[in-house]
Amino acid sequence: MQLAQSLQAIKPSYIREILSVANSADVISLAGGLPDGDHFPLALMEQSIQRLSSRAELFQYGSTAGYGPLLDYFRECYQLPKEQDALVCTGSQQGLDLIARVFLDAGDKVVMEAPSYLGALQVFGLAQASIESIQQRADGPDLQELEQCFANKTIKMFYAVPDFHNPTGVCWSLEVRQKVAQLCQQYNVALIEDAPYRELRFSGTELPLVSSFCPEHSIVLRSYSKIATPGIRLGLVSGPKAWVSALERVKQGADLHSSQPMQAVLLDLLQHDDFPNHLNNLRELYRKRCQYLANQLIEKLPNNCQFEQVEGGMFIWLQLPDCDVDSLAKQMLNVGVAVVPSSVFYQSTAGKQSAFRLNFTNACDSDLALAVERLAQVLEAVK
Amino acid sequence: MQLAQSLQAIKPSYIREILSVANSADVISLAGGLPDGDHFPLALMEQSIQRLSSRAELFQYGSTAGYGPLLDYFRECYQLPKEQDALVCTGSQQGLDLIARVFLDAGDKVVMEAPSYLGALQVFGLAQASIESIQQRADGPDLQELEQCFANKTIKMFYAVPDFHNPTGVCWSLEVRQKVAQLCQQYNVALIEDAPYRELRFSGTELPLVSSFCPEHSIVLRSYSKIATPGIRLGLVSGPKAWVSALERVKQGADLHSSQPMQAVLLDLLQHDDFPNHLNNLRELYRKRCQYLANQLIEKLPNNCQFEQVEGGMFIWLQLPDCDVDSLAKQMLNVGVAVVPSSVFYQSTAGKQSAFRLNFTNACDSDLALAVERLAQVLEAVK
Repeated sequence: MQLAQSLQAIKPSYIREILSVANSADVISLAGGLPDGDHFPLALMEQSIQRLSSRAELFQYGSTAGYGPLLDYFRECYQLPKEQDALVCTGSQQGLDLIARVFLDAGDKVVMEAPSYLGALQVFGLAQASIESIQQRADGPDLQELEQCFANKTIKMFYAVPDFHNPTGVCWSLEVRQKVAQLCQQYNVALIEDAPYRELRFSGTELPLVSSFCPEHSIVLRSYSKIATPGIRLGLVSGPKAWVSALERVKQGADLHSSQPMQAVLLDLLQHDDFPNHLNNLRELYRKRCQYLANQLIEKLPNNCQFEQVEGGMFIWLQLPDCDVDSLAKQMLNVGVAVVPSSVFYQSTAGKQSAFRLNFTNACDSDLALAVERLAQVLEAVK
Repeated sequence: MQLAQSLQAIKPSYIREILSVANSADVISLAGGLPDGDHFPLALMEQSIQRLSSRAELFQYGSTAGYGPLLDYFRECYQLPKEQDALVCTGSQQGLDLIARVFLDAGDKVVMEAPSYLGALQVFGLAQASIESIQQRADGPDLQELEQCFANKTIKMFYAVPDFHNPTGVCWSLEVRQKVAQLCQQYNVALIEDAPYRELRFSGTELPLVSSFCPEHSIVLRSYSKIATPGIRLGLVSGPKAWVSALERVKQGADLHSSQPMQAVLLDLLQHDDFPNHLNNLRELYRKRCQYLANQLIEKLPNNCQFEQVEGGMFIWLQLPDCDVDSLAKQMLNVGVAVVPSSVFYQSTAGKQSAFRLNFTNACDSDLALAVERLAQVLEAVK
């Protein structure tokens, strides 16, 4: 059977391919975006899980929008105004996919920072959208470039990860947030604010969501993979009622609803007295690992490899001297370290930086040290 | 933000709208396709659920294809040949949605029996496919009409529910199965065999899957909503490797993977020593309810209301004298009984039968009796 035309634009995710290799015992993986499995809040989830088998109603068909008490909690927790609604998704990845399906026709223009989240590139590719790339600076997108793009082209949406961007770790400044919101309003561009790492800030001051400055032009995607656990596959989309209602209609055809027992367990976890404490511990763990990796990189790598310190999230973006990053990543695999080369995070070849995305949340200090040692060796040999 | 063009073809599911009303305590619902929540195999799932919180690996990101041991079990259980693969889905509904996304371009022709499963109509509508309706007989699709359609038009796929069809309960005869398989091969049409009710046979003899006669031209969709529980949202797609691999690529963008803790619980349930016993009890329960409803209908309804006896599944298709079924269904709601009018199961107005789909799996005998009494009253008043 012939594939649909749209499918010819989508490539399998290099990360997920690399992950399958990275799983072998003798490879240290800094490739994935995996939270540390040894620090999942399973102790806090245990009682809730134990009670599941006595709660038959959770195992029946549920409503597409999500488990009622969980939606109530989200509405309160995120202080959603009356004009907004929320939809529980099978991971925030599903939220993103639904947004693309509901709002994009082939050829519609979507703005993204470059580099950008691979999963978003895939989803917009499948929707046959036309991607407009805006260069990313240390404090967010290049505003001049963004405004020119908004002014000169008919842009449908701007997809952004303002808190601890994947892959770069960049966190937008307050000024950039306000300006982007103003531009979205002025040019009637919908902001898709993807916030999976927002709760993983381990230094600096929390900044408002960009969407808080233009709520009527925004959809927010939240993930519970980083603060709860990824395996339960739960995320949230919120935004103006009419938009969320359209997303819900497509979700109905896509999977009817997300796992209800998992939604009930997530609610209990988020409401658990010790959950704030768990989050603090997690941030502290990731802060230490990030710092440790940063120190190792400074100590062991040549000066022409550089990176910006990050205040949260899961990644350090290691900028390399101009080189063939794909081949370098393969050499790294040969010496037992998996990293993601920058090439996969760009839509086009223009403006590509040579870099590796290094994950610091799922490796212990000794593995981080060993990985950087091997990285130094490979870079030495390349010179 | 303007909706995508494809979305303008999709209507919200009348069933799910009716279900929200049907949930009120004073309405007896024969509308949904709900299994009986009082007979979920939760006792058989309990131990597995209890163990979850000690199995951290299940809560990490997993592979898109599904939880490895569950896939191994399915491969063995369904005796998949080497040329075939399987993909765990977030309900078989997701499998159907993925099939539409992966294989259909706008305008591609999909054959369905009329009436047909509403969720499939929705999904194919969203894919902007062109639906070709074939009349359904007591033993399956009208073969002459089907062959003419295959011969005269370029058909991409034939979507079918050969075991206890939704909404009619029709089960295809062996002869029809063989002939349809032969036609699919002859005209190079992919058969999408949706088998959610297959295990719910409570009388007669099990017949081979249609796809067993043309495996290289078929995709099979299986659901665990009826034999396990719907709330966990798990289904399976299997078929030729190249096709399943394409489905997996799109699933990666759609939700990365399905809930892993739920997959592990499903595996334990399916392998539980008492699971065959649970299935037998469930079939016996549904057989009795079906028989009870049938008897009530024969006893209380006028002779111009007719139905065929069914050998399994969840529905009786009550054929009514020609009338406005939507308005009649609303009258039924007013007297406290929710049913689904036949109109929603047809793509076009041509050949529409006046009928109600009556679910017998989620109401006790006294409710079934009361529902039929009220139905008789409403029908009496209409005359």
